[in-house]
Amino acid sequence: MITADLYVEVQTYYANQMRLLDSLKIEEYAATFTADGEIVHAHRDERAQGRETMIAGMYAALPRYKGVVVRHWFDHLLVEQGGDGSLTVNYYTLVSRTDAEGKVVFEPTFTVTDILVRGDDGQLYTKSRYIERDTPAES
Amino acid sequence: MITADLYVEVQTYYANQMRLLDSLKIEEYAATFTADGEIVHAHRDERAQGRETMIAGMYAALPRYKGVVVRHWFDHLLVEQGGDGSLTVNYYTLVSRTDAEGKVVFEPTFTVTDILVRGDDGQLYTKSRYIERDTPAES
Amino acid sequence: MITADLYVEVQTYYANQMRLLDSLKIEEYAATFTADGEIVHAHRDERAQGRETMIAGMYAALPRYKGVVVRHWFDHLLVEQGGDGSLTVNYYTLVSRTDAEGKVVFEPTFTVTDILVRGDDGQLYTKSRYIERDTPAES
Repeated sequence: MITADLYVEVQTYYANQMRLLDSLKIEEYAATFTADGEIVHAHRDERAQGRETMIAGMYAALPRYKGVVVRHWFDHLLVEQGGDGSLTVNYYTLVSRTDAEGKVVFEPTFTVTDILVRGDDGQLYTKSRYIERDTPAES
Repeated sequence: MITADLYVEVQTYYANQMRLLDSLKIEEYAATFTADGEIVHAHRDERAQGRETMIAGMYAALPRYKGVVVRHWFDHLLVEQGGDGSLTVNYYTLVSRTDAEGKVVFEPTFTVTDILVRGDDGQLYTKSRYIERDTPAES
Repeated sequence: MITADLYVEVQTYYANQMRLLDSLKIEEYAATFTADGEIVHAHRDERAQGRETMIAGMYAALPRYKGVVVRHWFDHLLVEQGGDGSLTVNYYTLVSRTDAEGKVVFEPTFTVTDILVRGDDGQLYTKSRYIERDTPAES
């Protein structure tokens, strides 16, 4: 069981990180990852390793965000501390897109698993982010 | 006023419990209740008492979840500790349904009141869950 | 970095305040502000200063809430403590409207900045609330 102070630190880390992502501050968002950090979109079998690859991928995706404001909503964080001090965090994500007229639509929901590590500066960084789109079980 | 550590313990309890519910692990979800635990859906005047009744009711409801992934989103937890050590927790719930194409729809919003108790194993269990569908005031 | 206990106190303050707002308890909601408190809706250039002005404005807006239940969902709180003990809190807001049939629609998303102060009674009060509608960047 982690302490409440650590839990709140993780929440605050995400609050800052999502503001950077949602305001399309691409370089600043990438800087919240470790230099060798990676983002895996499991549902489309896509992996970006290293900040430069991330940044290139996000610039390529920018047209998808033209004319909308995206907001990432998190819930149900599970934070576990590993023996090496790293944190494994699993959470639900809902993604809203608000257009200029104020109409809101939602992307499919996701479940995300991050590994967070503490840098030499004492701050948290994302070492890996594994994103799974929520998909109905085969029936 | 409860401590932050207890608040985070309650949040983590729900994070685990909702993962079980949302992945339709019915028996494991029922096991997060006390043996005599109950769930009341006030808006449809329905009460399930005891884990076996809950489990039967959830199996009967499974067809409603065919082809969709359900996610329960919580907000605005109010956690109060009773003299007997039980916790009364009231929270908002938003329920999303994502289909195979990624389309998201929402069920009506709900407000839930739980009583949580601590078992002999030191873990939290839900003794009762009272679910009210948010309904406009008569006008 | 604030303590987890303070973070949870802020969350609990909002949990209570939003229940008052969402159940249209207008006078009680206004009483969670300081006597000279203000609410600014930046996107429609509207400012209400003082509890009485707030109350009048909310009564005037009541017809907009006829036949629906509104719920304000918060996420990604950033809580910062000023030298004078006041708190600046920034957060995401999603607003749902559920009608009598259970249909859910959403208002445009918002980002809110509050200044909270502690009253002589030791409780938190909102001194100012600055509400910005999330609007796509010009392109």
